[in-house]
Formats: sequence, C-alpha cells, structure tokens
Amino acid sequence: MGHGAGGEMMQELISKHIAPFLPDIDAEVPLRSFDDSAIIDGVVFTTDAHTVKPLFFPGGDIGSLSVCGTINDISVMGACPIAMSCAMVLEEGLEIDTLERVMQSIGQYSELSGIPVVTGDTKVVESGAVDQMIVVTSALGKECPYLQKNFEIASQSRKVANRWLTDDNVGDGDAIIVSGTLGDHGIALLSFREGYGFESAIKSDVAPLHRLIGSILELGGVTSMKDMTRGGMANTLNEWSSKSRVGMEIEELSIPIHPAVASACELLGLDPLTIGNEGKIAIACVPEMAEDIVRLMRISPLAKNAAIIGRASKKFDRVVMKTEVGGRRIIDPPVGDPVPRIC
Amino acid sequence: MGHGAGGEMMQELISKHIAPFLPDIDAEVPLRSFDDSAIIDGVVFTTDAHTVKPLFFPGGDIGSLSVCGTINDISVMGACPIAMSCAMVLEEGLEIDTLERVMQSIGQYSELSGIPVVTGDTKVVESGAVDQMIVVTSALGKECPYLQKNFEIASQSRKVANRWLTDDNVGDGDAIIVSGTLGDHGIALLSFREGYGFESAIKSDVAPLHRLIGSILELGGVTSMKDMTRGGMANTLNEWSSKSRVGMEIEELSIPIHPAVASACELLGLDPLTIGNEGKIAIACVPEMAEDIVRLMRISPLAKNAAIIGRASKKFDRVVMKTEVGGRRIIDPPVGDPVPRIC
Repeated sequence: MGHGAGGEMMQELISKHIAPFLPDIDAEVPLRSFDDSAIIDGVVFTTDAHTVKPLFFPGGDIGSLSVCGTINDISVMGACPIAMSCAMVLEEGLEIDTLERVMQSIGQYSELSGIPVVTGDTKVVESGAVDQMIVVTSALGKECPYLQKNFEIASQSRKVANRWLTDDNVGDGDAIIVSGTLGDHGIALLSFREGYGFESAIKSDVAPLHRLIGSILELGGVTSMKDMTRGGMANTLNEWSSKSRVGMEIEELSIPIHPAVASACELLGLDPLTIGNEGKIAIACVPEMAEDIVRLMRISPLAKNAAIIGRASKKFDRVVMKTEVGGRRIIDPPVGDPVPRIC
Repeated sequence: MGHGAGGEMMQELISKHIAPFLPDIDAEVPLRSFDDSAIIDGVVFTTDAHTVKPLFFPGGDIGSLSVCGTINDISVMGACPIAMSCAMVLEEGLEIDTLERVMQSIGQYSELSGIPVVTGDTKVVESGAVDQMIVVTSALGKECPYLQKNFEIASQSRKVANRWLTDDNVGDGDAIIVSGTLGDHGIALLSFREGYGFESAIKSDVAPLHRLIGSILELGGVTSMKDMTRGGMANTLNEWSSKSRVGMEIEELSIPIHPAVASACELLGLDPLTIGNEGKIAIACVPEMAEDIVRLMRISPLAKNAAIIGRASKKFDRVVMKTEVGGRRIIDPPVGDPVPRIC
C-alpha cells in the first residue's frame, strides 16, 4: 500500500517499474519531467485515477474530487482547462442512487467550473472486482492568456527560463506561497472514515482553482505552481527542490494549519505537511511580487489563509524548516502513505 | 452486469443515469453525440477503462488492449492520435513481474504505433478493492491531413455534410465495409478464460489501426468510420442507423467470420455479430470508392479479410440482414453483455 502514496515508495514504483518501459519523446513537457500535466503540441494533458473511500465525505465526494483534481493539475501548469473525460468502473450491484449522486456532483462541479465533460466510458464488473466505483478523469487545456505577461513581470526580477510553470522553474530567492491551511482533505476524510470525530470541525478543501490561478497569473511574477495532493506540502517542496536544484527554507510558524488538523495530527502521530490536499496550491514567485500575490489570493474564499511560508535558497540543498522553537528540521517527502485512499 | 455491455442496457445506464447530469456544450463533436471520441477546439479526445480478465490472453493483454483501443477511437474520427495518458489502479500484492509485463506491452505498442504515453497516474488500493489491475487510457488527436481530401472525393458522389467521420454521417446508398473477421477478440478471450479450447485456432485481433485508417483516408471517399468494440458489429450498425437515420441492408454471406469463431458461437449459443473486436473497424463510404478501399485494405495484414458487407438504404428503417437461406432477419443491438470483461 505504501506504493500508492505520493512519497518515495510511489516514486520508486513509477521510476523503476513503470516509466522505464515507456518510450518518451521531446514534448514541451514530457512524461519524464513528472509534472502535474504533460504538454504536447500546445495541448496540456493530464489524468487522475480516483479510488477514494468512502465515496461521500465531509466537504465532497468522488465526483467533486475527480473534477477538481483534474482541473487543478491542468491549471497549475499555467493553462486553462477546456474539457474533461470521465471513465468509470462500477461494481455490479452498486445502487443507481449512489451512481446518480456521484454524477450529480460531477455535473455540478463541471457547471460551476465551466469545464464540460465531453467524453467518457463506463464499465461494469462483477461484485467484488472493484470496491463500489473508480472514477478516472483526464483533461485538456490550452495556454492561459496571461501566462506570457506573468513571465514578463517575473523577468523584471530575474532571468526566467521556462514557457510553462514547470517544477524545474523555481529560482534562488523565489518566495514560496501556499494557498491555505494544509491537510484538511486528508484529515477530514480519515477522521470521517475511522469515526475519530474531527470532521465536525474540518471539511475537505476540494475545490476547482482555475479561476483563482488565472487571477494570480494576471497579476504576474509566478515562476512555478503545484497542486499539493498526495504527499502534501512535504512532497511538493521536495519535488521542486530536486527538479529545480535549489534548497528551500521554510518557517514553521508561517505555515497555515487548521487547529483541528493540528490536534488530529498530534493525536494520530501524523505530520500535516505530508497529508494530501485537494484544493490547495503552492506557488513559487519572484520575491518582489509575493506580497501582492498573497494579498490578491486572500480576497478569494478559496485562499483566504494564503501565506508566504519561506523561500528557495541555494544556501541549502534540501528542504529545511525553521521550527517554532528556533531549531532546524529537514523536511523529507513521506516514505509510505500516511493516509491511504484519500483520493 | 448487463449494464456493462455495449448494447441496449448500457445505453440505458448512460442515457438515464449518467449523461443527464452532465452539462453539455456545443463542441465540434460533443458528449451527447456519443461518438468514439469528442472533438473540442480542434482537439480529438477519448477515454477508455480496461477491466479485461484475465490480464494476459491469446494475442494480447490489458496493455496492448489499452493502447490500441484508445488509438483506434481517435483514428476512426478522421484524426491522428498524438499522445496518450495512462492511469492505473493496482491491487496491493500484485506481482511486480505482472505489472512490468503489462508496462512492457504498453511500451511496445506505444513504440510500434509511434504514440507516446505522456502523462499518467498510479493508485494502489488494498487487496480485494480491485481485481489485480485496471488500466484507463485517454488520448489526444488532431485532424488527419488527408481528411479534407477524403471528403472532397466523397463529395463527387453525393453531398457530404460533416467535417469529421461521425456516426451521423452515413448517407443513403453508402457501402458498408468491415475490415476483417468478426468476434475474434471476444471469443479468443472467453474460450481461454473458460478453457473451451477454441483459442488454439483464434487469437485476439487487438491492433493499432491508425496507419491503415490514414491510408484509407488518403484514398478517399469515406463518410463515417467506427471501432467495432463492445456490442460488436450489431451495435455499430445500429448506432449508425439510428444516428444517421438510415436503414442498413447486410448480406450474411459476405460477412467475414473465422470458422473457429463460427463453431464456438454455435456451440455456446452466441451471435458473432454481437461479440466485441479490438482491431476491426466498420467503414461507410460512397459506393464508387468501396471496391478501391477494400482492395487497398486487403494489402494490409490488419485487414486482409476486409469485405463489403452491405449498404445503407432508406428503403429500411432498421438493420436488416439477408440470410444465407434467402430470408431476412433484423439485427438488433445486443441487450446485455454476451461476453463480460473482454475489454
């Protein structure tokens, strides 16, 4: 099960047993870059398999998760999602009412986000061959109209190499912003599933962030952006650090965490920085724009707790956190999966 | 389980409990047209969930099936596939060797077809939550460079309305061609799974048909094209008939069927016309081009048994087959799934 996490075991599974068998090509953003989406012939393309358990949880369900996760993966590349596909594998005997509730959620989030589901596939397998249902969404996107202006503004501060907001594009000195409290989705889901009771105070943060991201790019100065799903912030920062070959210096006190998530994590022995989110992004931007970007983000209900949590720094070759008590702690990506089947 | 078939129960599941919840848009080929792929902003887009059991079967495996099925769905629209995504859900405890054999197959077919896998997702679920593995592939395509020339040639015979090879584009008098023997995939798989022994004589026909389709379009005169997967030829012809509002007149004697498939179907009480294929297309074309197209197809090892099997005709409002003995039989789409989990 550890292989299913966003952390090191998953990286190993993919890098040793999956990716080496696939011939890669020189796409604008190819498979081997392991970004949130690939980009080929100007089309941004991503896919996500959703196996969340239970199907319905505080703040969302497998339908909203599928729509939002895919939209966010496209958007963090600096692209506008234009269409989704939806493939479902259903267990024989699944209540039609359950299916319809999921479809209603997919429809509502598609409507809300303005991104249509244009194609799909449905398979029914015998009872026991799948746990209720699996939803796999893919999406297409095209370059966000503000992306080049965004890079021009970033270029006033430093030379910015890339055409897209890829993981290898963080530069020394870039500010690191997160869009809100961390771990809400994973802890709400775990707590609800296991009956711990924290879910009365915490809901999943599942949300489509493409409009928020569009407004941030219109302001400008962003160099990279990531969707902090599996493996949480710890995984995100480590991917940036290794792909951009730059260390990160994070301030523990500046990291927004909901008090109930903090309590739950303390009680359960979990690290909120490794817990998956479904409506939270991390942004790297030139330092001159960081304050303006956070101010803009806080206007949105989807990012009202946005905060600058640190900076990229060549002084370090790892992700390092200044702790509350003044010490330093290295933030590694999670090894296994602290909370399985949350997405 | 019947809902999982390509036939009427599946149509009902989709049209009553899935599609009505999804807001649709005026894409070039939208969701509501239920074509093999959707087309939006000039991008052809499709998705397929693969739940085949067993994972490895005579002539193929879940890997080759996933690659070819998706490539073919793009190609029959009159498009060239440019990239695929691959999302997998793996059961905890699945042998790494099994995973690697599937990946090797995906890699080989990707290499063979020249279509790269550019993005993916992998989830691991606990033992029992999925039967070994599910593979969901999506793909992108762009208009085939020969498509407009193809339509120009068709237009010399009759007014051809559409820009793509959609299901609603078959005209009165169009010739109907199938690319080879029907039912090989479904019968090979069923026979192997159940130990009937026919699989010594029959293999799955799984194959990527994009190059064959490209050469046919270069010749020209095609009005519509379909991938004869779930529900087989019976489903394909009925979809054409209802969407193009034209009857079909088919000659039983002209339908290519492998003798072992015919024997197996007789013994098992199955109709080969309703059995799924994974490397067979149906083509509607202007009658003037039909002989040339079949002659060209027969040069390819993937279509050496290509045959004209009948014509579209306003004289009928159903799919009607002239039987071997001179009678007439109505071909309905299959109601349930004659052979479950073949794709």
